Order: sequence, then structure tokens, then C-alpha cells
Amino acid sequence: MIVTAVTVYVKPEHIGDFIEATGKNHEASVKEPGNMRFDVLQCKDDPGRFLLYEAYESEVASKAHKDTSHYLLWRETVEPWMAKPRQGVAHSVIYPTAKAMW
Amino acid sequence: MIVTAVTVYVKPEHIGDFIEATGKNHEASVKEPGNMRFDVLQCKDDPGRFLLYEAYESEVASKAHKDTSHYLLWRETVEPWMAKPRQGVAHSVIYPTAKAMW
Repeated sequence: MIVTAVTVYVKPEHIGDFIEATGKNHEASVKEPGNMRFDVLQCKDDPGRFLLYEAYESEVASKAHKDTSHYLLWRETVEPWMAKPRQGVAHSVIYPTAKAMW
Repeated sequence: MIVTAVTVYVKPEHIGDFIEATGKNHEASVKEPGNMRFDVLQCKDDPGRFLLYEAYESEVASKAHKDTSHYLLWRETVEPWMAKPRQGVAHSVIYPTAKAMW
């Protein structure tokens, strides 16, 4: 398994647009065969800061996400709305160990 | 719902200790009534960097976690192993909206 935590800073005037576009990416991403989670969170202290929590069953599945049409459309759509480049951090899973918990 | 993403930097010589202590915290935390997730992740590029992904059904449940004996023991145990102070960021949930997805 691999979990990528992506922090995104969005320009204030595009927060609503970002949520809408990211919702479409979420809906399509959770239907990918190797996807385990695709959570979209908004920072309570900074509404322009978002966290995407993207869990995949393998490196292959995680990489395949970046070739999907919904990811490519999302990336192109939201890029001009970002206040600074997004930061993705790839993680290994320590807990929970049971696949059923994902 | 509230999701707190906590980034922890651990001194190299205590990475194993940290994983063991955090595993005990994970096992007890997922049994708390208001807990939805308590994922423990290790950064692929920096094995001393961890992400705790703590989802609770309410602010009250999230705060109650900090009064539990397992949390207090974990905090006291791991504090001297940290390379720098941990950073917790509280989030609202945008997606998934269905509680069953948590």
C-alpha cells in the first residue's frame, strides 16, 4: 500500500471552484480498481489549505491514477487556482495492518 | 467530523521505539466510541517522518481522545524521541460525505 498526502494552497477567490473540481476527481478516483481512499479535507484554520489523502493498494495503482483522464483534467483545471505549488508526500502504511480497515 | 493530521519527526535511533509506542496508541484509539480512523504512516523518503491521520465523528470526540490514558502515555513516552515539536493540523471533511465511507 501507498498513501500520498497532498497539501494544496488555493487562492481565496477559487476555493469554491477547487472544491467542485476536486469533488469530481474524488468521485472518479474512488472507482479506480486499486484505490482504497481518496479523502478531501479543508484546514479549519485556513480555508485555502486542503489535504488530499490518497490511498492505493500498490505503487502501480498509485501511478496509474496519474494517467487517468479525471486526474489529468483536475490537474489542468486547478493549476491556475493554486497559491503555490502543491506538495505530495508518499507514505508506507504502518497501521492499520488489516486490508479490511482500508 | 474532524480529521487531525499530525506530522511527527523522530530521531533515527528511536524510530523502532516510536512505531511500537504508536502502535499501542493506534490499537486503543480505534476503540474509542467517536473514532473513525487512526492511521499511522511512515514517509517513504524520510523514515523519521510520520503522519498520524486521526478522524473523529465530532470535536467533542477528538478532544476526548486527548484525555485518554493511552494518549497521555503515548505523548509522555514519545516526547523525548521527537527531533522537533510535532505539528497537528485540524481539518473539516469535504469528501467522502457518506459516514459509511469512514
